[in-house]
Amino acid sequence: MPQPVYVAGAALTPFGRSRESLVDLLAAAAKGAMDQAGVKELDAVYLGVMNPEGFTGDGNLSVSLADRLNISGAASSRVETASSTGAGALESAFFAVASGYCTNVLVVAGEKMTGLSTKAATRLLAQVIDKGERRYGASMPGLAGLIARAYAEAHGMAEERLLEGLCMVAMKNHARGALNPYAQFRKEITPEKYFSSRKVADPLCLYDCAPITDGAAAVVLSREKGAVRLAGVGHATDSSAVTRRGSLTSFNSTRQAAMRAYAMARINPQEVDFAEVHDAFTMFEVIGSEDLGFFPPGGGLEAALEGRTSVGGEIPINCSGGLKARGHPVGASGLAQVVEACWLLTGEVEKPQRLGFKPQVALTQSIGGLGNNNLVSILTLAAREIDEEGPWQPSFAPALAPLTRARPEPPPGQAHGRLLSHTVLHNPPEGFEAPLRLGLVRTKAGWGSLAHLKAGENPVLGGKVVLELQKGFYQARAVSDLAVPWLKARDLWRSLPVLARRFKRRRINRDKERQAE
Amino acid sequence: MPQPVYVAGAALTPFGRSRESLVDLLAAAAKGAMDQAGVKELDAVYLGVMNPEGFTGDGNLSVSLADRLNISGAASSRVETASSTGAGALESAFFAVASGYCTNVLVVAGEKMTGLSTKAATRLLAQVIDKGERRYGASMPGLAGLIARAYAEAHGMAEERLLEGLCMVAMKNHARGALNPYAQFRKEITPEKYFSSRKVADPLCLYDCAPITDGAAAVVLSREKGAVRLAGVGHATDSSAVTRRGSLTSFNSTRQAAMRAYAMARINPQEVDFAEVHDAFTMFEVIGSEDLGFFPPGGGLEAALEGRTSVGGEIPINCSGGLKARGHPVGASGLAQVVEACWLLTGEVEKPQRLGFKPQVALTQSIGGLGNNNLVSILTLAAREIDEEGPWQPSFAPALAPLTRARPEPPPGQAHGRLLSHTVLHNPPEGFEAPLRLGLVRTKAGWGSLAHLKAGENPVLGGKVVLELQKGFYQARAVSDLAVPWLKARDLWRSLPVLARRFKRRRINRDKERQAE
Repeated sequence: MPQPVYVAGAALTPFGRSRESLVDLLAAAAKGAMDQAGVKELDAVYLGVMNPEGFTGDGNLSVSLADRLNISGAASSRVETASSTGAGALESAFFAVASGYCTNVLVVAGEKMTGLSTKAATRLLAQVIDKGERRYGASMPGLAGLIARAYAEAHGMAEERLLEGLCMVAMKNHARGALNPYAQFRKEITPEKYFSSRKVADPLCLYDCAPITDGAAAVVLSREKGAVRLAGVGHATDSSAVTRRGSLTSFNSTRQAAMRAYAMARINPQEVDFAEVHDAFTMFEVIGSEDLGFFPPGGGLEAALEGRTSVGGEIPINCSGGLKARGHPVGASGLAQVVEACWLLTGEVEKPQRLGFKPQVALTQSIGGLGNNNLVSILTLAAREIDEEGPWQPSFAPALAPLTRARPEPPPGQAHGRLLSHTVLHNPPEGFEAPLRLGLVRTKAGWGSLAHLKAGENPVLGGKVVLELQKGFYQARAVSDLAVPWLKARDLWRSLPVLARRFKRRRINRDKERQAE
Repeated sequence: MPQPVYVAGAALTPFGRSRESLVDLLAAAAKGAMDQAGVKELDAVYLGVMNPEGFTGDGNLSVSLADRLNISGAASSRVETASSTGAGALESAFFAVASGYCTNVLVVAGEKMTGLSTKAATRLLAQVIDKGERRYGASMPGLAGLIARAYAEAHGMAEERLLEGLCMVAMKNHARGALNPYAQFRKEITPEKYFSSRKVADPLCLYDCAPITDGAAAVVLSREKGAVRLAGVGHATDSSAVTRRGSLTSFNSTRQAAMRAYAMARINPQEVDFAEVHDAFTMFEVIGSEDLGFFPPGGGLEAALEGRTSVGGEIPINCSGGLKARGHPVGASGLAQVVEACWLLTGEVEKPQRLGFKPQVALTQSIGGLGNNNLVSILTLAAREIDEEGPWQPSFAPALAPLTRARPEPPPGQAHGRLLSHTVLHNPPEGFEAPLRLGLVRTKAGWGSLAHLKAGENPVLGGKVVLELQKGFYQARAVSDLAVPWLKARDLWRSLPVLARRFKRRRINRDKERQAE
């Protein structure tokens, strides 16, 4: 039997633009958690930072931290799972304690991002995107924009309705951030402010995207008692390429991670009292609330609009302000969610922040990369009674969307497909001219690709497009249904020499093999 | 009780300069280990890569690997502990299996380094060095050179004798590399070749340093039976600054990691049949053989000279060729050692590579950074009987060297000290002119610092030097014993205004406090 794992201490630094160095931020959070836990001797340190080499030029950071904390001698490892890194470090530390080999383990996670320009930071953040998609100029907001539009289309929702829902999420999280002394943004926002802000990646605007932030979080995990128990941890990956996924409107990785965490904790979604859900983009909070089993597919946006995810609703989400308002130091966020969840469970927050009831079970969900390295943690009050041995019936077992085929070279006669989604990047990565129009196309044969869209053309969701290779990139051009048979015939004709060469090569190879025999 | 952990499969890619991408190298090793283990379903993947963002521009690599292996869905995390990263990933995976939550876990580690110029690669590798020391132009070979010279001095050894010993280590490892089909260098070297090769960092020459390499290693850890048991894992950090350490001639981090691994495995150094010791520099193999308890301090070099660490000797070290001849893809090396140790234990090597006896216990030691993030693993044949419960008496409990004080600004009247070691970098980092002369100085008050040495001067080990701040760097100048009282008086005189200001500030503060009361 694995050992139960408790959270003995939890701390945050204020999130925002900081003058302190990364190591100083990490050490401040670590000291806070160690003081609360009353722990001086550590068996190990797990440090979560996404890209310190890139953001601050720091290498071997797990040692610098041990040095700075004056605990040289303790084992210290860095764990990285892209933007879910804080939760990734928590998972590894959880296993170290659960194994019985470690009694007290410190988990620290942070990132120092504001030292670079927004352009440079965005370039580093884009390193987590699938290479094939990054090549097209896809940034994180770009892919999130594609997903948002696909969500509205899949659930037969007008774009206005989608934006009303996303605005509601942004307003809810900013209103909670205003109450959180650690949040980067402590101001409420109005619908006017939301709707008049600049578009980042159609249909997402500035208030749909989490900011660039400095900050750190820490917890001490202990085999001995703490007030909160880390009852379940789940972790799953998904195809790095968004274009390969069977579904754009849910994340397999969240669903699988949630199933694993629920099973480990022997808890069902109905029992969760509140949740911290990764809202690097407002759209992701909505999708997360469905993938975690709180609402059926397509029901998350309506639930947000009806206030069912606000405090007072059936499942309050991001009561801390979320990544949106608290800020998003990429390495820290996954662990900051856990710290906030612990504080809400134990009531260690100012009165206005409290939930109005005594929660017993909290869930945190963190997204790595573009939804492909996700973690879910379940925290319960240690006093809560659990039946470790008896039968447990999972109520949540969603189907996983199968992967589509890998993107090959354009197959002859198949470079026709339907436009699943599109977006406009108003501030595209280096090497691309603004505005950059991106589409996501899937062919009948089941392979998907990004494509550039021509300026001036009016893209139609679900409309037929033809893909043409121009300077190494697919360009999608809308065509009428009538044109397709003609284009197919033309492509077949053009591909005849290719097929002939292939046939010839195969014959030569066969002859060679025969001679070899 | 933690679950026992077995190695169910182990594989390497050939080490050297590779045309394959990093993900392809990792996947090749992973497939080899999974095939050998006969495992298709994995609970988790732990990936060790030191700096993929820097070396190849890859981010979120744990997902790319899962994708490439077609196991999307499995949990996948990257672990990093500088140059011991492969061993760091193994440790985290070990806890995951020992916890009882995971049955089969894949550990993959690798690095692709030859895509960059040697200069650019050296710059990335130097990111793991303490910032204060890096500022002086200290590179990894530079610090290793300082340590080598200090070793000879500490043990009253002529430099010629030191070089004879290091040459012996290099020849031994190259001779074993010549037998290893996976090694980067498969040629023996002669003393002539060693002594005529160019100096890299006095007294170390080219053949004392491991090369820049591409390669990957993988093992499958399993809760179910395998032929080899991972019986103990130890991990410890040390001060990132070499100048702060109480001893230059042993690594606290190795000693502590070894004590922990021996205790976990209930094994003593005398029972180890052979070892893979981190020989990024030949000097480190010698120091490692002492820190691991095989030889007393100062005995490692003599032991190497007498052939006691060669095959046929009492404790064969680096029978695979070591990092020196097998190559050193920084992220991979810590795990490659484990793979080679498993193969030697189970006899899965070509006949010339065998040890001439049936080993039961192997040890691997991996150094992170400049000896500050070290791991030790102990592997035993699974068939070996162990008494898990009975009393066990450790025979190895070396003292740890206490840390010296942090390097402050030059304290008035104390910028005098002794030169503990010196080296010449013939190919220094960007921004420094070749040859760069570096010294390590320690003052009577117990603080240490690097310093630049003047060209033309003949540095004397243990000799008195005065430190002068020039353009932000200490410069060490040899002084006679007689000059010291005079210099002290001069410094005291010069520091009078500083002391006066400090006194005045203290008085003002005290007054302010009184007023506040």
